[in-house]
Amino acid sequence: MSRVITIGREFGSGGRELGRRLADHLNMAYYDQEIITAIAQRTELSVQYIQGIVEQRPVTPFPITVAHSFNMTNDTGFQMNLQVFQAQRQIIEEMAEKSDCIFVGRCADYILRGRDPFRIFVYADTESKIARCRRKAPEQEKESLTDKEIRRNLEKIDRNRAKYYAFYTQQTWGDKVNYDLCLNTSRLNLKQAAAKLAELALIHWSV
Amino acid sequence: MSRVITIGREFGSGGRELGRRLADHLNMAYYDQEIITAIAQRTELSVQYIQGIVEQRPVTPFPITVAHSFNMTNDTGFQMNLQVFQAQRQIIEEMAEKSDCIFVGRCADYILRGRDPFRIFVYADTESKIARCRRKAPEQEKESLTDKEIRRNLEKIDRNRAKYYAFYTQQTWGDKVNYDLCLNTSRLNLKQAAAKLAELALIHWSV
Repeated sequence: MSRVITIGREFGSGGRELGRRLADHLNMAYYDQEIITAIAQRTELSVQYIQGIVEQRPVTPFPITVAHSFNMTNDTGFQMNLQVFQAQRQIIEEMAEKSDCIFVGRCADYILRGRDPFRIFVYADTESKIARCRRKAPEQEKESLTDKEIRRNLEKIDRNRAKYYAFYTQQTWGDKVNYDLCLNTSRLNLKQAAAKLAELALIHWSV
Repeated sequence: MSRVITIGREFGSGGRELGRRLADHLNMAYYDQEIITAIAQRTELSVQYIQGIVEQRPVTPFPITVAHSFNMTNDTGFQMNLQVFQAQRQIIEEMAEKSDCIFVGRCADYILRGRDPFRIFVYADTESKIARCRRKAPEQEKESLTDKEIRRNLEKIDRNRAKYYAFYTQQTWGDKVNYDLCLNTSRLNLKQAAAKLAELALIHWSV
């Protein structure tokens, strides 16, 4: 059976960066919300991406900073669309069938619970998340928002993630009982930490 | 400034074992609830232990399985004794001043918050905790309790730990915001994991 890592994450806590780095360390395919959405919509980009996964995994054609702008995320508004969820669930199951992979978001920890995924949740204090958002924002957005506005956006996105997760899993988003490891990234060197977490994942699978 | 690791833990989740192993890996002094209580009471055992710490740390004269019997723990009943807390707090501060060290329990994460400790919380599902308690129990106790009785004991001890922590810290025990890392030990090889967590602690301190 293929190996799976799932990452739940507060917005701005570095979950996507961690996912990318783990994918590199462990040679696993990487899927996040934007990629899964693109695949569900069968865009040309997604076709290229899947092709890349099949031929040469892990493939990371997207820059690591993508979707750090609030405008680019599609979960600022919460939509409980069962059809969309079912389509994404099917993609997640197909991809997990195809190869070892890492999923960021999309309730993958719940959807793939039968595969014994290594379930990570990433969080941070508000100050660090604001700083990270500012650091990763596109140039034209870097100065346009106040800290208060960024905080309001963060909170709104996370409220929606919590609602989405609760609706589809009947579990509490971010509650440590649903994860194997919860990591506070507030003052952590993610690059160095990813190497150690990759080794922890291998220990998880060795049991 | 000395380096400090603090470990909060659900009863039966392996927090003490993890603490011992980290102490060995990182050559740090090790203190847990029983040791701190013994020091506070200035018993002969505690004098020997402190002497050992000073001369040759880490020193582990207690077998790793000590206090896995419910009869040996002193937190089955919750006591908010401010004098005892103050005495223990003073010991924790003195020991942290003296050398690098690891504290299991006793609100050390809160007491030493000015020292930037690496704060770990260890938890597990009820089934694993029951199995662990049974495995680590003294021979004469191994068969004497039913799973239901063990579960009731676990829950009672953890309720008291939560109350104790809340009373002295005004924080929520086990809430991930109070920790740098929360680890689910339900199906984890603690010996192997400890080596990686030791390396993660070093990354924490390097920032």
